Amino acid sequence: MKGLIERLESGKIPPSLRKISKLENIPLDFIVKNIIEGRIVFLKNKLRDISNPCCIGKCLKPKINVNIGTSTDETSVKDEIEKLKVALKYGADTIMDLSISKNLKYVRKKILENCPVPLGTVPVYEAAIYAQHRYRDFSKFKEEELFSILEEQAKEGVDFFTIHACINKKSLKVLESSNRIMPIVSRGGAILAKWIKENDKENPFYKHFDWVLDICKKYDITISIGDSLRPGCLKDATDAPQIQELLIAGELVKKARKRKVQVMVEGPGHVPLHQVETNVILEKRICDEAPFYILGPLVLDIGCGYDHIGSAIGGALALWKGADFFCVVTPAEHLRHPTSQDIKEGTIAAKIASHAAHIARMNLIPPEDIEISRARSRRDWNLQEKFCIDKDKFKKYRKASTPSEIDVCTMCGKYCSLKIVDSCNIIK
Amino acid sequence: MKGLIERLESGKIPPSLRKISKLENIPLDFIVKNIIEGRIVFLKNKLRDISNPCCIGKCLKPKINVNIGTSTDETSVKDEIEKLKVALKYGADTIMDLSISKNLKYVRKKILENCPVPLGTVPVYEAAIYAQHRYRDFSKFKEEELFSILEEQAKEGVDFFTIHACINKKSLKVLESSNRIMPIVSRGGAILAKWIKENDKENPFYKHFDWVLDICKKYDITISIGDSLRPGCLKDATDAPQIQELLIAGELVKKARKRKVQVMVEGPGHVPLHQVETNVILEKRICDEAPFYILGPLVLDIGCGYDHIGSAIGGALALWKGADFFCVVTPAEHLRHPTSQDIKEGTIAAKIASHAAHIARMNLIPPEDIEISRARSRRDWNLQEKFCIDKDKFKKYRKASTPSEIDVCTMCGKYCSLKIVDSCNIIK
Repeated sequence: MKGLIERLESGKIPPSLRKISKLENIPLDFIVKNIIEGRIVFLKNKLRDISNPCCIGKCLKPKINVNIGTSTDETSVKDEIEKLKVALKYGADTIMDLSISKNLKYVRKKILENCPVPLGTVPVYEAAIYAQHRYRDFSKFKEEELFSILEEQAKEGVDFFTIHACINKKSLKVLESSNRIMPIVSRGGAILAKWIKENDKENPFYKHFDWVLDICKKYDITISIGDSLRPGCLKDATDAPQIQELLIAGELVKKARKRKVQVMVEGPGHVPLHQVETNVILEKRICDEAPFYILGPLVLDIGCGYDHIGSAIGGALALWKGADFFCVVTPAEHLRHPTSQDIKEGTIAAKIASHAAHIARMNLIPPEDIEISRARSRRDWNLQEKFCIDKDKFKKYRKASTPSEIDVCTMCGKYCSLKIVDSCNIIK
Repeated sequence: MKGLIERLESGKIPPSLRKISKLENIPLDFIVKNIIEGRIVFLKNKLRDISNPCCIGKCLKPKINVNIGTSTDETSVKDEIEKLKVALKYGADTIMDLSISKNLKYVRKKILENCPVPLGTVPVYEAAIYAQHRYRDFSKFKEEELFSILEEQAKEGVDFFTIHACINKKSLKVLESSNRIMPIVSRGGAILAKWIKENDKENPFYKHFDWVLDICKKYDITISIGDSLRPGCLKDATDAPQIQELLIAGELVKKARKRKVQVMVEGPGHVPLHQVETNVILEKRICDEAPFYILGPLVLDIGCGYDHIGSAIGGALALWKGADFFCVVTPAEHLRHPTSQDIKEGTIAAKIASHAAHIARMNLIPPEDIEISRARSRRDWNLQEKFCIDKDKFKKYRKASTPSEIDVCTMCGKYCSLKIVDSCNIIK
């Protein structure tokens, strides 16, 4: 049975790729060639019919992922569907369901039903929840149980899997001899580290990576290699455990490409501003330009409540320098399970970062920025609203503070620079 | 009568400079030498006694300015004093009073009384408001009226003046032959452009720059050369009018230094991410490393309601690359006169940007980031709160979503990676 890459090699082009080529304004040939070579991934399970699949990688517009899903404390499906809608409204290109509640299968079913964009999961979560229920110990799942969960999620239509395959005996050893402040800040990574320790066995994803590849190939699922050892604070950034894991990711990328399975690589984390570009270059070199999926990077540790801003700074720089896929960080990061409002704020911050990075990558000002500026210059408030990322906030802010001269705003009133300039005909 | 620079040259060091040297952990000699050479400015009117004067420039921590002040529509002094307090609470190093209401003198008096940090103004605003009242035309103020306002504000203790001296017949000509979308987005710049046009005379600040220098020298006031032609949208960034104005600023910096008056230079504006560093390099070269005071830069035009985030992205990069002084942009930018809440959000975003940039400049992780990370690793929530930029939001977020296991948060609950790692003794 042929996977996507083999079908592309034999000239079979899915219609949605043509649509993407038009939307992105990038030649179809270029996209197809780069999917075949592994520099672009096309997120779409062959069993799922979605209206907005997407491509991620080389020369494409950076894409945004929004994490939703229940926690052990917050288990309402309704809330997660609400978050899904908010994420889509403000520009999520993909969604990941990170649910870890007992009802996670039902949550996933509902999310899949309502999600017109690619959906990703972290299958080891389900294995852990299953083992907790079955064996009263989340680290006791058996290898075959783990892989049957993968197969099951694949059949349901999940489009991409985060697979924490690089936390293995080798990288754990490097971690153990390090002086990290925060050893592991990846939930999936910690579960697998515990599994390795408790069962005294190698990471099943690493040991049986071919098994992962079999399943992913069968359903056209893209692997996102999880970064279990991403730095959780600035002090731990770009250290030996992180780079050791990246080297292992590089090996696995090679394996996946050999088997013609699509693969991308996840990245940090907390990284000081001056190390962000280095992290992008390293991933691109070590993983031979596999699409880079960044989780932040957060450029400070003390910004709790505003981590969407710290992440927008790091993300904008990383995306400009070549990262491809940006995971939303919300104001709730480090503090609590996010609300819809948190998801909204995080998604908008990510949108701002990715928009700014796209402009820098292309060296081109997009039509919407030009149009809003023309409208602003003419003080056409209705037209400005039309091009805004968040039209509701625009309206709300205007309404809350009404100027006595209606064509300006209450900041400058009659001393609006644009209005003054109009009155003296500086540029006709 | 000697100005600060001459006093420093003759070995007289104000005690507050010693304090700043300790606070910044930078040798006093270095600071003194660079003030004399014009690469650092010391903001303090000799008539005003403030508890927290500050130095801005070479190798120092980037500083944050917050703009407050009434508008024609919003004239409450109480509101502005409230904003002043919020700005100081969240880390403003300086304040600018941009009031343009009829009662602006009273507002300034009240702000000066309550402001323990350097205060800046834009004196041409007062001239315009005066002329509007006196002559029913804000562009009809006479030269001597303008300069007597400067002298009066100097006597009151204002520490730095924004002087829009570079919008003159020459730069206006370049502007007029450009294809800018937004000719002038500087309020002071627009007022002076209109003055030049209506009165058919040269800009009094440019023509009589020596007069400005006389007053500033007398009171140790630092000049901040206003950027009347800063780009107001990405399409206008780094264009001929902007660079023409910068060239004039370079001349004026030379003049001010010759007269031993402290001077810094204001910069953009709206600038695409990939042009930010260029803008810093240009200012540093053309103005011979005069401290660079950036107003943004905003890296997108469509972010209304979230311009504090777009500005944090541009600001972090600019400060890292050498800009020195960062003017807060609030979520109200382009929309309305800001509220206290807007000031809070803008100041925190600027703090995040400047903290991230400081780390990158120094290649050093500050103690507070290390300590909060240690506390986070141990899941010590009280200690984390202590190091947070916004302790109130930290508390509020924790309180709104209580985990069933109290040492974690509701995002991961019992699957907290740090707690899992603790349980398997990965790093002792």
